[in-house]
Amino acid sequence: MTDYRTLRVALLGAGAVGSQVADLLLKHGDELADRAGAKLELAGIAVRNLDAKRDVDLPQELFTTDADTLIVGSDIVIELMGGIEPARTQVLHAIASGADVVTANKALLATHGSEVFEAADQVGAEVYYEAAAAGAIPIIRPLRDSLAGDRVVRIMGIVNGTTNYILDRMDTEGADFADVLAQAQALGYAEADPTADVEGYDAAQKAAILASLAFHTTVPLDAVHREGITSVDAAMIESARHAGYVIKLLAVCERLAAEDGGTESISVRVYPALVERTHPLASVHGANNAVFVQAEAAGDLMFYGAGAGGVQTASAVLGDVVSAARRHIAGGVGVGESTRANLPAVPIGRVITRYQITLEVDDQPGVLATVAGILSEGRVSIATVEQTVIEATPDAGDSGAATGSATGAGSARLVIGTHKAREQDLSETVERLAASGVVERVVSVLRVEGN
Amino acid sequence: MTDYRTLRVALLGAGAVGSQVADLLLKHGDELADRAGAKLELAGIAVRNLDAKRDVDLPQELFTTDADTLIVGSDIVIELMGGIEPARTQVLHAIASGADVVTANKALLATHGSEVFEAADQVGAEVYYEAAAAGAIPIIRPLRDSLAGDRVVRIMGIVNGTTNYILDRMDTEGADFADVLAQAQALGYAEADPTADVEGYDAAQKAAILASLAFHTTVPLDAVHREGITSVDAAMIESARHAGYVIKLLAVCERLAAEDGGTESISVRVYPALVERTHPLASVHGANNAVFVQAEAAGDLMFYGAGAGGVQTASAVLGDVVSAARRHIAGGVGVGESTRANLPAVPIGRVITRYQITLEVDDQPGVLATVAGILSEGRVSIATVEQTVIEATPDAGDSGAATGSATGAGSARLVIGTHKAREQDLSETVERLAASGVVERVVSVLRVEGN
Repeated sequence: MTDYRTLRVALLGAGAVGSQVADLLLKHGDELADRAGAKLELAGIAVRNLDAKRDVDLPQELFTTDADTLIVGSDIVIELMGGIEPARTQVLHAIASGADVVTANKALLATHGSEVFEAADQVGAEVYYEAAAAGAIPIIRPLRDSLAGDRVVRIMGIVNGTTNYILDRMDTEGADFADVLAQAQALGYAEADPTADVEGYDAAQKAAILASLAFHTTVPLDAVHREGITSVDAAMIESARHAGYVIKLLAVCERLAAEDGGTESISVRVYPALVERTHPLASVHGANNAVFVQAEAAGDLMFYGAGAGGVQTASAVLGDVVSAARRHIAGGVGVGESTRANLPAVPIGRVITRYQITLEVDDQPGVLATVAGILSEGRVSIATVEQTVIEATPDAGDSGAATGSATGAGSARLVIGTHKAREQDLSETVERLAASGVVERVVSVLRVEGN
Repeated sequence: MTDYRTLRVALLGAGAVGSQVADLLLKHGDELADRAGAKLELAGIAVRNLDAKRDVDLPQELFTTDADTLIVGSDIVIELMGGIEPARTQVLHAIASGADVVTANKALLATHGSEVFEAADQVGAEVYYEAAAAGAIPIIRPLRDSLAGDRVVRIMGIVNGTTNYILDRMDTEGADFADVLAQAQALGYAEADPTADVEGYDAAQKAAILASLAFHTTVPLDAVHREGITSVDAAMIESARHAGYVIKLLAVCERLAAEDGGTESISVRVYPALVERTHPLASVHGANNAVFVQAEAAGDLMFYGAGAGGVQTASAVLGDVVSAARRHIAGGVGVGESTRANLPAVPIGRVITRYQITLEVDDQPGVLATVAGILSEGRVSIATVEQTVIEATPDAGDSGAATGSATGAGSARLVIGTHKAREQDLSETVERLAASGVVERVVSVLRVEGN
């Protein structure tokens, strides 16, 4: 056994991820030492409640409620508490004490990332966060290092496992959102309060982190346009399937070319979108995550794996711990990125993409011409149209046909696929369609991603 | 514009990848400087022939035939000549001169990797080789860094674009190997001499590199079992499809548990294998590559992208150049791995996997019992059997039915899927089957991977 220098590791938090990290640090100590070039001594685990039940049996003497004392004198501090406070204060304390920080805290990085990274820069510390963006999937190093000589043009990520699980079950079973959500909660795939997942807040935080890295710029969380999946119903999924699509909650990060002599800008947005069934993202099932990256030189890349889970996420955390240890042993100062660009993030209205608009209209001569005229005036170009007569069914089944305001005889459904259009033009056009005499109901408007 | 320190970059080789690297270094200089924290000055391009035609227009004054002089005084040397010599000598020269090295040379690393890495260790230089294993796909950093705290159990890689293109076309078109190879050569997907690709030499080099990283050990090239795809025919592909499989040339790197109190060992092998059509690797089409990684904690991961191509591979090379530059600026010494394990690689006979055995047998009572008896004696357990009578057709079509030695009336085809068996047992059993009176012909024996 090689005689390694010992590094003190402090762990803050012993939840689903933290307890697995502690377990692996203790179980695989020798092997980790060989990979890190240093012995990693778990100096302690700071928790709020010493008596809480843990997922894994861990030596009781490691636990403490005094995080501040544990942090002082540590070489590496692993923050797995989650949430903004006290995580923020303790991460800053760790940095000020000369430690490197490993964190999986996407909320903290998406809201206070600049503060944390600047504090680290000032003292020559490093902050590692592979586990913050897509669980076990190695995506941070590829974006920060492997693609640093290329120009990322676009990212489309399935970065929230809960919503992918729900949409996937809705797709395979024809089930409705509420039913699948209840199932997912029973199975532990969704929280009792599912808001952070189903409303897209979690995905938006990850989108901000990915966009910051990919475009080497600072993306505040409030620059991320966010829509959740609560309005997705079985009829929309069935209609998407009929047109060759699947609905996925996507985090889209896009680089937009400079206009009129200005600078480049970016768009970062989270919403349920139509993805062609032949696209690699369409075959990401269950609670898995995947990040599809398009770069100017590298072309299309995809990174696939488990997006959550205690032991899976622990893998990413420990990879960061090994990196931090290697850096300590090498005595190196920061090897992170230097000057960041300052690319403006455009509002959702300036985004350009394709759309699928589903309308219920009067089934009368001239209606299609009227609809087409409104689209054309609105600078929205039609790629495909499918018209079907809505049958008058007394009971609303889950056959996919909208039954809301169908007036029995005399109604038709129009599914319109558009060419690329500006979101602002599109939404104004949809408003004009809704106000026109011929449209009974706007059933849905969905973006189509993945060209 | 920030005032950056300038680093001298020497480029050796200006082929498909090298000319793109030079072009991107010159075109994106400012952006690269921001990412690297240093200005990257292309000091020169060493080539054998100053008058050769290049893929990209580059300033003539950069070219030189004097690599030795160019190397001296360079901070980063990019070796894109390929082949063993003079690449090996010049890489060692660069290291001795104090430069970091970036290379895409899989042949060099698979045969002289230890020599190169040791030379670098001695002087505190780094060798970067993201482009050596799967073209543009970031796989080196994930294995070396992101998964360094985990234990990789198994890698299955589609790491050769030419053979994947050929097998994919055979699968989708029912075409024969020779026809598709000729097409691939005409389209530039295969070399005039396709041996390195179709016989698996290229994949074997990449397998050695991936296994060395994944298991943190040294894997000599001659420890890699290698079979090519030249014996794969349209009938095998059709038969695979019928059974729910697709045939892929796989690089398999596997960690084997310790036996009888010994140490762990590894198996590294390249061969055409059956992959279930629902496996993520089955949907890797055309000349694309993908590396499927199974780790104890992280679970299943997949990395997908372009495995070759000048500009795509240039992306990976430039990522390494940026990493090398950051390290220079940080003044850090090596941040690579420390002590390597010394895991023995087992011979192919000790590999345990599943198999599909296709036989032509006499269509007589008792034949299946005889075959089953021979398998059982050989410790090969049967999972599935499908028997079909071979019709006596005078003309050999491409319907997938073997017509070779079928004797008209009285022949049947047996397709046997086995449970896991030891390769040694399997091959001895197949020999006994071939020698038995009831088997007319062993049509094919294929491994099944991906459980």
